[in-house]
Amino acid sequence: MTGTLYGIGLGPGDPELMTLRAHRLIGSLGVIAYPAPAGGESFARSIAAETIRDDATEIEIAVPMRTERFPAQDIYDSAARDIAQHLTGGKDVGLLCEGDPFFYGSFMYVFARLATDFPVEVVPGITSLTACAAAAGRPLSARNESLAVIPAPAGRQRLDAAIAANDAIAIIKVGRHLPVVRDAIEAAGRTSRAVYISHATLSHQVVCPLAEAPEAPPYFSMVLIGGTDRFAHE
Amino acid sequence: MTGTLYGIGLGPGDPELMTLRAHRLIGSLGVIAYPAPAGGESFARSIAAETIRDDATEIEIAVPMRTERFPAQDIYDSAARDIAQHLTGGKDVGLLCEGDPFFYGSFMYVFARLATDFPVEVVPGITSLTACAAAAGRPLSARNESLAVIPAPAGRQRLDAAIAANDAIAIIKVGRHLPVVRDAIEAAGRTSRAVYISHATLSHQVVCPLAEAPEAPPYFSMVLIGGTDRFAHE
Repeated sequence: MTGTLYGIGLGPGDPELMTLRAHRLIGSLGVIAYPAPAGGESFARSIAAETIRDDATEIEIAVPMRTERFPAQDIYDSAARDIAQHLTGGKDVGLLCEGDPFFYGSFMYVFARLATDFPVEVVPGITSLTACAAAAGRPLSARNESLAVIPAPAGRQRLDAAIAANDAIAIIKVGRHLPVVRDAIEAAGRTSRAVYISHATLSHQVVCPLAEAPEAPPYFSMVLIGGTDRFAHE
Repeated sequence: MTGTLYGIGLGPGDPELMTLRAHRLIGSLGVIAYPAPAGGESFARSIAAETIRDDATEIEIAVPMRTERFPAQDIYDSAARDIAQHLTGGKDVGLLCEGDPFFYGSFMYVFARLATDFPVEVVPGITSLTACAAAAGRPLSARNESLAVIPAPAGRQRLDAAIAANDAIAIIKVGRHLPVVRDAIEAAGRTSRAVYISHATLSHQVVCPLAEAPEAPPYFSMVLIGGTDRFAHE
């Protein structure tokens, strides 16, 4: 009997935003894997640190620090082989994922390599999307409003199209693209409603109007424009 | 000292998908409010039932069953008055919300009425979006892919535009609009990748290819089209 691979969403950073299911699973699993920047600390592991069993076997997936490039195939090939060995031996493996495993997560690279050969279960997690809205105290979308999530590195043209076509917009992975993001929102006349957020739910969380966003935002930062708020007036 | 209004996301239905924070808060609060269909059982309350204190004061917000119409203003006016009374008296109030309070939730109607006068904190919850992706075993979006969430009642034109412009699409509130949704996806040539989901995470969950969706889907059902899955081949 082979083991099951659990893709476990941990939420945006505050350990209390783990689900009861994630908490229970992590505490019961003997093999835990997680991504870590090569040579650095794993953010995913830090969220779950208090919950991981002392006697758990840990598999660190050392992901090269190349933002906006696609991760080296060989790293994930090798991680998938390590995980597959435990699964073949009948052991369940939990792969820890910041946010939600299927929402812009690196879990997919392992999933793509193992899902045809092994049972996989995904435990959804709180996404940065709703964590940032909560941090900003801003409703995202209601009623028949559309909501688009668009990564800033997709470029100005796609940002313009997304902003024009939707009621609510979440621009993720802002980082060094902030000037482009700012210009696109300004051109659409929506700056006054745009909020900048980074490190949502952590002690160094930043929430401010887009106009006051820091000069050099981290890669994982977000600009949110909520829906039209018509609900407030009806 | 006034109390704080907590908008508490409960996730999609499985009580284990509550966050640790939601669980702790609900267990500590003396006043709990929740929406319920007029004359029916509250789904939100059912998710949290095991966690609500026996001695809690409960405020039921009896929402008229008018899908796709906008809820009666007077119901929310009255609920906001009830809640405000507790807050003014110094008591914290937890308003239970299916999914996430700021993601297509009725929480916003109360939020709009009270947020200027009282402290409000939102506890984000697992959305139907990632719960459905997990149930379907389908990655939503990765890398620079865009993701659009569009309610089916928004109409064929907006569905067509969202499907054409985005890599990943979540069509929510499918219900009686299924034929229109099906036609729009078929016209875009994306039927083979579309999945229908209802009641995600509950015992009567349904997951199937769009082509096999039931004739009369419930209002809260979803059709998902994942991103391009290029990550699987690189």
